[in-house]
Parts: sequence; C-alpha cells; structure tokens
Amino acid sequence: MAIETDPVQALEELAAKVKSQGDLIRSLKSVPTADRDSDRINKEVEILKDFKNAFDEYKQSHGLESITSDSKKSPTGINHNNKNHKNKSKDNKFQLKVPKGTKDHHPKDMIIREKIFKTITKVFKLHGAVTIDTPVFELKEILSGKYGEDSKLIYDLQDQGGELCSLRYDLTVPFARFLAMNAKEFATIKRYHIAKVYRRDQPAMTKGRMREFYQCDFDFAGLTDPMVADAEVLSIACEVLEGLEVGEFTIKVNHRKLLDGIFSLCGVPDDKFRTISSAVDKLDKMSWSDVKKEMTEEKELDPTIADKIGEYVKLKGSEELLEQLSQDIKLTNNKAAKEGLEDMKLLFSYANVFGITPRISLDLSLARGLDYYTGVIYEAVVEGSAPPMPSTPKPTTQSVKTHSKKNELDAEEEVDESQVGVGSIAAGGRYDNLVGMFSSGKDKIPCVGISFGVERIFSILKTRAEKEIENWKGKEVDVYVMSVGDGLLIERMKVCKELWNAGLSAEFMYKVKPKPQRQFEILDRDQIRFAIILGPEELKMDKVRIKEQIGKEGNLDVKDKDGLMIDRKDMIDWLLKRLNKN
Amino acid sequence: MAIETDPVQALEELAAKVKSQGDLIRSLKSVPTADRDSDRINKEVEILKDFKNAFDEYKQSHGLESITSDSKKSPTGINHNNKNHKNKSKDNKFQLKVPKGTKDHHPKDMIIREKIFKTITKVFKLHGAVTIDTPVFELKEILSGKYGEDSKLIYDLQDQGGELCSLRYDLTVPFARFLAMNAKEFATIKRYHIAKVYRRDQPAMTKGRMREFYQCDFDFAGLTDPMVADAEVLSIACEVLEGLEVGEFTIKVNHRKLLDGIFSLCGVPDDKFRTISSAVDKLDKMSWSDVKKEMTEEKELDPTIADKIGEYVKLKGSEELLEQLSQDIKLTNNKAAKEGLEDMKLLFSYANVFGITPRISLDLSLARGLDYYTGVIYEAVVEGSAPPMPSTPKPTTQSVKTHSKKNELDAEEEVDESQVGVGSIAAGGRYDNLVGMFSSGKDKIPCVGISFGVERIFSILKTRAEKEIENWKGKEVDVYVMSVGDGLLIERMKVCKELWNAGLSAEFMYKVKPKPQRQFEILDRDQIRFAIILGPEELKMDKVRIKEQIGKEGNLDVKDKDGLMIDRKDMIDWLLKRLNKN
Repeated sequence: MAIETDPVQALEELAAKVKSQGDLIRSLKSVPTADRDSDRINKEVEILKDFKNAFDEYKQSHGLESITSDSKKSPTGINHNNKNHKNKSKDNKFQLKVPKGTKDHHPKDMIIREKIFKTITKVFKLHGAVTIDTPVFELKEILSGKYGEDSKLIYDLQDQGGELCSLRYDLTVPFARFLAMNAKEFATIKRYHIAKVYRRDQPAMTKGRMREFYQCDFDFAGLTDPMVADAEVLSIACEVLEGLEVGEFTIKVNHRKLLDGIFSLCGVPDDKFRTISSAVDKLDKMSWSDVKKEMTEEKELDPTIADKIGEYVKLKGSEELLEQLSQDIKLTNNKAAKEGLEDMKLLFSYANVFGITPRISLDLSLARGLDYYTGVIYEAVVEGSAPPMPSTPKPTTQSVKTHSKKNELDAEEEVDESQVGVGSIAAGGRYDNLVGMFSSGKDKIPCVGISFGVERIFSILKTRAEKEIENWKGKEVDVYVMSVGDGLLIERMKVCKELWNAGLSAEFMYKVKPKPQRQFEILDRDQIRFAIILGPEELKMDKVRIKEQIGKEGNLDVKDKDGLMIDRKDMIDWLLKRLNKN
Repeated sequence: MAIETDPVQALEELAAKVKSQGDLIRSLKSVPTADRDSDRINKEVEILKDFKNAFDEYKQSHGLESITSDSKKSPTGINHNNKNHKNKSKDNKFQLKVPKGTKDHHPKDMIIREKIFKTITKVFKLHGAVTIDTPVFELKEILSGKYGEDSKLIYDLQDQGGELCSLRYDLTVPFARFLAMNAKEFATIKRYHIAKVYRRDQPAMTKGRMREFYQCDFDFAGLTDPMVADAEVLSIACEVLEGLEVGEFTIKVNHRKLLDGIFSLCGVPDDKFRTISSAVDKLDKMSWSDVKKEMTEEKELDPTIADKIGEYVKLKGSEELLEQLSQDIKLTNNKAAKEGLEDMKLLFSYANVFGITPRISLDLSLARGLDYYTGVIYEAVVEGSAPPMPSTPKPTTQSVKTHSKKNELDAEEEVDESQVGVGSIAAGGRYDNLVGMFSSGKDKIPCVGISFGVERIFSILKTRAEKEIENWKGKEVDVYVMSVGDGLLIERMKVCKELWNAGLSAEFMYKVKPKPQRQFEILDRDQIRFAIILGPEELKMDKVRIKEQIGKEGNLDVKDKDGLMIDRKDMIDWLLKRLNKN
C-alpha cells in the first residue's frame, strides 16, 4: 500500500505544527508568573518536543536535510518543486509497524504473560479480592491534577465532539472514581484489576519502558485500624514476588508524613513540598550533588535547607533506624514526622508477624512522584543491576536536561539505564484523600494498594524461559488426525468433531489429499502427543491406528510402523484415559 | 471537586467549535464532486453532530436556552454578564461519570464475564488456537480504508506530536497487520484474541450497544483447500454458542462472490457494489421498500435494477435453495456467482459432516458492512426478539436520517431497537486480500475468522444468573479468622499467613479489637464456609475452634455454641482435607 504523499508538503505541515505549538507556549508564558499554568506549559513543551522530533525524523528519512523547522528563520526554505523529493515520494511505502512504545505479543510470550497473571491473581484471591473492570479512557477532568509532574504524559483522545477523554494513566485514579460513584455498595472492598495503562513516555523498549503496558493492582478500600491493611499489602507483595520467582528483592518503604515532617523542620516552604519530594525521589538514579543542584537551581531552594534535607534522606535501614529517628528531638517535636514514625513502627511490628521484615528496608529517599499518596509508600526492587520498570516512570528527561548542555531533544538518549542500579517491579502506598476528591469529601474512603509492573517481571521470566520453549509453538494439542493411503478428508473431519465434543483438542490438515510425510512433519513440529491415523484398511475394519510421540510421557513411538490398532468406538475412552481427562 | 467554569464562556467555546466544524465541512464540500473525500466528509459530519449535541446538552443543563449555537445568526446572542448564569456556575459540580458509551463492570458481572471468556477460550484451544496481543491503538493509516461507511466511527488519539494513532475498531485489521509483519513465522496460524475494541457509535446502552466493548476473535490464516477451514469456523461458532447456552440460534451465511454476481447480472455498476451491498445488509431491520428507497434515492440506482436485486435478496433457505439457484442459468452464467454457489455447496457438505447444518441458513440478504470480506460471510443470531449486538453496528443513524423529516441530530432517538427483530451475537467471514493490503501483495495470506460479541452474550447470561447470585458478593473465601473474648489481632494475622501459605484463601477484620458480633455478620454476609475462632482459652491450650456455615456443604453450624476444637498444628491439614485441596 503505497501512500502517495508529497514529502515536501508533509514536511511543511510538520513545520507549521512546530511553529504554532511554539506560539502557543510563548502565549502561555506571556502571563505574569503567578498566573502561569505550569502543568499546561510542561505538557505543551513535551508536545513541542515530539513535533520537533517528528520534523527531524521525517526530514532525515526523506533526504530533506537542507530544510529547517524554524519557519521564522527561513520561511521560504522549503522548495515546493524540488523534483528529487517528488521522486522519492513514489517509493514512499506504507510504514508497517506498531505505534512507538507499543508492541505485539506473540503466542510464546502470551504463555509467559498468562502464567504471570495466573500467579498474581491466585495470591490476590487468597486474600479475598474481587475484580472490576473500568473503561480504558476516562473523562479528561477525572485524571487532571492527580499525577503531579507526570501529568504531561497523559494521552488525550482527539476532540471529535462530545466529551473530552484521556487514556488511563494508571488503575488507581479510575478505582477511586469507581469508589466515589459506588460508595454505598463498596465502602469496603478488596479489589484487583489487571489491565493496560498508557503513558506518553520516551520509550526505551529494550529496557522494558513502554507507552502501553499492563499493571496488576491490588487495593484495599475502607476504614481500618492503623497499618493493618498496609501490612497485608506488603505481605501480598512478598507472596506475589516469591510466587513469580523473580529472584532476590527488597521492598523500600517510607511515609509521606515522615517526609513532610522532615521538609518542614528543615525549612522547606509548604508550597514546595511536592516538587522537592519529586527531586528527592531521583536519588536512586542520581547523585546527591545532582539532586541538590536540581533543588537549589531549578527549584530555587536555599542551599542550607537542601543540605539539612540531605542529612536525612541518605538514611536507610530497618527497625534500628526507626529507633535512632525516635531519639531525634527535632523529628519527634514535629507533629507529622512523629505520626509517620509511629505508623512505621507499627508497620514493622506487623511485618514481623507476617515474617516479611527481612524483605523490608526503611529508605528516607523514597518519595514517589504521584500527588495522591498520604501515608506509607513503597517500591519493590529486584536485586542487582536492572532497569526501572514502566509503571514508575521518573521524569528522567527533565532531570537530565537540567544538567546537560546538549539540545533538550537529545536528553533522553543520555540516560544510561544500565547505570541505574536496581529496577522497581512493584510500587504503591496509602492514598486516603483521592476518593474524597471525587465526592466532595462526603465519602472519604481511605485506600491502600500496590501495583505490579508486568512488563518488567515478564522480561525476567522470559529470559529464564527462553531455552525451555525455544522450539515450542506455544500451543498444546492432544491429537493430530491424519490419513495415509488416501485423503479421507470427511473421515478426518468426523473424527475431529468427535474429539472436540469429548473435550480433546485436535487438529487436521485442511487439504483434500494431504501427503502423509507433510502430516508427520506437522505432528513433529507442533509436538502433538497423539496421532490418530486413518487409512482405507483401518476404515474397512472400523478401527483407527494410534501413535504416540517419543518424549511426550508415552511409550509408543510415532515412527514405529504399526502403532496401536484399536476399535473406532473405543478411541475416545482410550485417549481420555491416557490423557487423564476422564 | 467543584470546577469553577463560567457556563456562558464554556457555551461560547462550544458554539465556536460548531462554527469552525461547519466551516471545515463547507470547505471539504466546496471541491468538485469527483475530488471530494466523502469518507472524510462523513466523518466530519459525525463530529459536527456531536458538537451540536454537546452544545444543546450543555445549554439545557445550564439553563441557557435562549442562546443559539448558530453564531452566524446571532453572534451576539451570548450575554457575558448574565448574573443568573454566573451564580449557577457556583453549584456546577464536577461530573462524576464514565465516558458516554462505556461502563464499569462490577465484581459480580466480572464473574459472568470470566465464565464467558473461559468457555470461549476452551473451545478455541480445542481447535489448536494460540493467542496474541496487539496494542489498543494502531497507526491511523493502518485502519484507514478498511471499514467502508463505518470508518467515520473510528476514534482518533489527539495529535500530541509524533505518530497519528487511532483506537482499534476491531481485532481483524490488527491481526492482518500482525500477519503482514510476521509472514515468515506465521504463514499458517490459528489465533484467538480477546480484547476491547472502540467505536464512536451512538450508544444505546440498555440494548448492549457500546463505544467500548469486548470481542472474542478466532481466525485461521493460511492456504487451504476450499471451504475446509471455513466449515471448521462455523463448527466453532456452534460449539461456543452451545457451550454458552445462549438458547436457540441460527447462523446466516452468504458469499460475497454470489452477492457480487447477483449485483452484476442485475446491472449494478461495478463502483456501486459495496454501497448497494451495505443497503442490502439493512434488510434485517428495514423493509424492502425502505431499502429500495435508499438504493434508488440516496444511492441513485435505477429502480428496475433495484427490483431485480429484490427478487434475489429475499431468498432464504438451506441446501434446497442452493439446488434451486443452481438451476438459474443467469446465475450460473456469471463467473463470480457460479464460484460462490460452488463454495456454498461445498460448505454445506462439510457442515453436514460436522452435524451443524440444522443451525445454518443461506440468506441472500446478508451482506456485512465491512469492505474486507472476499468469500463466505456469516452472522449468528439468537432466536426471538433481541437487539443487535455492538460488534456489528449498522449505520442506523444514517439510514433513519434518509427517511426522516426531523432534525438529523434526533435521528438516533427514532430507532426503536425493540422492533429490530433478532440480535446478532457473532459474525465473520473470509478475507483473502486484507493481509496483502499491508504487504504489497507479496505475502497474500488468505484468512477466515469469526468474532463473538461478548456484551450481548453477557446480557443474556446475566439475566439468567441474576437470581442465583443476588446475594453474593462475587468472591469465594475459604476461611474467616476471627476472635472472641479478646482482639488477638497478632494471632489472627499469624493464622491468616499460615492459611495463605497453604493456598487457602482467608480474611480477617482490620481492627485491633473487633466485636464478635460484627465478625459473625461478615461471615454471614460473604457466605464464607469456615470460621476459625480464636479465644484466650483456645490459645492457652494451643487449639483453635472451627465452625462451618450452614448450606455450605458442611454439617457443622457456625451458630452452634461449640464448633469443633482441634489442635492448632492440625488446622491446615484438616481444612485442606475438607476443602479437597490436598
């Protein structure tokens, strides 16, 4: 399918987009600082980057290097009658690919993925969870104001009339919206939800960061005594990750109140808590000096305040660290910090009961980017060098940009993800106010939950499974119904229908007269355990011949000349028995 | 979350959208007829309707009736300083809902849906199918030109820079794109795919027509002898619908070549085949005289040609109809019609082998709206009066519009779906050229498949299941761990952890000191089979008390004072044995 577009015209359109997007941003920035909608500006800047990228990529792939996107500098730089370009468009084939940041999952991958879902679902159900499903897009206003600096990554649907909608960014905000709408029926619920979410992140696909990816969420909604449900969620995290055999892992925990208390006693102004929090959260992939630079230069924090924060956020440990912090009078004199400390002590005591304390590490640098957390927060990381998981994107582009002298469009190239250290594989926390944001505070249902990032788990398990399933087609068929001596299509169809009706999976070749050799090849290739062989002789006697594959737990060799000759009427029972299906 | 928007300003913005959309359509229509992009125009008209709807709805809900959307007629009709309107905006709450045409699925619904998926998947696997997954959105150009008149219903993502994408409209085109990209590995494949698809249809939710809904697709790709795989797909349709117990059903079948042959011999010009086909397809919900009107008035077909078509498309029957058609020399003299007839004879002979002929009806009025079918086409309908299913939307709005004198925006209100007759529950056909459209004809993989519409099946099964699950929370928990005499939170947590580790589902109350009565209530409410009861006395003796719910296959009454006292160390084994889990 050749698309006959004029590349020069297409490039002109891209240039016009870059220009009008630039104009938009300039007009957004033209208002007084106090009135500026910085979320909107951030988002529009991201779009501008993508437009510029698209322009550059198109220019390069169509050999139009002499043309610039900056239409102010060279408004006449595009030559409409350039014959070279016209000719190029003739060969301009339809681009056969999936959208950037997405991928197809092949049958073998699906086997692994379904195994992951099954393991996770089993644990969720052990804890009494039920499942719900919500639409893949929500009203745009439902998602706005929930994700802090990451809001710019939300995908919007085109305004084709009617409501403005956005693809869901996570499963947590839709769950809170669901609770607010059904507060009477579900004031208390343990729910799980396994579904795809969408983020216009800069994809690094080889590392598992995607624009479309699955999350598996477990959340508890409802009033409880402090930290009981929170501890159970941590236990679920351990049970899931142990069940999936992902290898050694640690669950880093922290508390928003403890963190806010620290910020407060260090002297951070109230309105900078969240933005400083998001700088702190980068300590797992940036040095303290870089994080400090972001705090002081980009976010205009007093360097002495930053240094005070630095003393706290470098602390990591277990119950002994909690003890140490309890001796810190500055901390215990701060209401929020004191409450946070007490919650954490209780959490550790319950974690002891569940026998999971060795997996848990108090880490004061853990902050989590999202706005909606109010209490304990956590992030499970797999030991060893591994990339970050897609479900917890950090604004890496922006952070690197700050310290880079290069073009901001190249920023993402500079993040060497192999240097990142450990990879987050699950994350979550307590969010007591999110439901209330949707229901005018009337139904303020407190929640705590966790989200598992399947793509990251998938990469770990796939690497391990690759050898086992190398020659496997990803399907399990019990019986292959074949013919020798004659085509016998109708007979083969009849036998198959009988097998299907009996609950046995079966295939036959869609040929009137297939060659025996070709049928044997498929039997081998698909590693089908049993062959039912029909021939004119067998038919006359009302019998079938059964052969069994070597290495398929059987003791009959399919290549053996004779196989087992049995009465046609006994065929189903014989197979059901051999396959333990009766 | 009160959104403080000025309703007058919001309405002005909507009016501006209506105006600019109208301008766009006028400019698209201003080109000579031959150059007009009618697909684009249709799509933009749909958008205009939605803008107008949004305007009217907003106007009504905010008491701004005096204002008109036609900014040409009354550009100054909107009063900026109307105090009434300003006051209204104070109460203008955030609208808490899911987008139009979508819905949340509650836990009980999910039980039914998962049962449907399980039944369908089981049949697919019996036939040797493997599963794949593709992204929820595709490059816009992948979907264009595949859906005929329905293309206007495709959802686009907003152009936020980078590639232009659309939400998938079905699972068939993404499958063909997948095959074209993986032709070497999957030149032959039986694949199933269960996933959501998206259509900007006018929703009639009570009737099961949605903008987001699940499809369950089975397709066979690869070269075969004629009609063998086609017949197996029909057998699969019967096995699935019988397995789901949807009640009596019929599979209407027809053949594109037979239909094209009829059009040709009746004198329909070649370039009108698809549009006349799409008129014929409405015969299941419109009278012949209305369909004829659409053909002759809207689609400018000669009335004598329409009458000739009418003679054929009213025919319905089985093998005897095939015989009758074979006697029609006009038909057998037409190459396409003759090929179609021969295919249908072969299909019926194979259907006889599979024992499914009683379910199948040759119906010459079946045409299927989509462009990509090339051979046999089919549609399964449940007997009795039922609405059409979401997976086969017919352009009802448009058809009604043609015969209505009312405002076109009200058109969808007029479709009385209860009059529609039977409801389509599955549909599909052969599409031999679709993969080739993506691969320059090099890898022309022929395909045949079927799509089951889950929402429609769901409505049928839900009505039936409603009584059974009325008082059920949708979860199955084995054990409730409770305490009497003291709170014993830590002990309850320990017991739960033991149960989870043993694969037993268990819950406890998230309270330090829960009241016994409240715990018994939950045990009752959630119909949990076993209660493990802890008390100071039992703890001292290292024992637990077990009680079993009445009516839960047990013989111990949970309300019985004593229950069974057993050693704590024997608890797990005892439960595993009673629950047949060891």
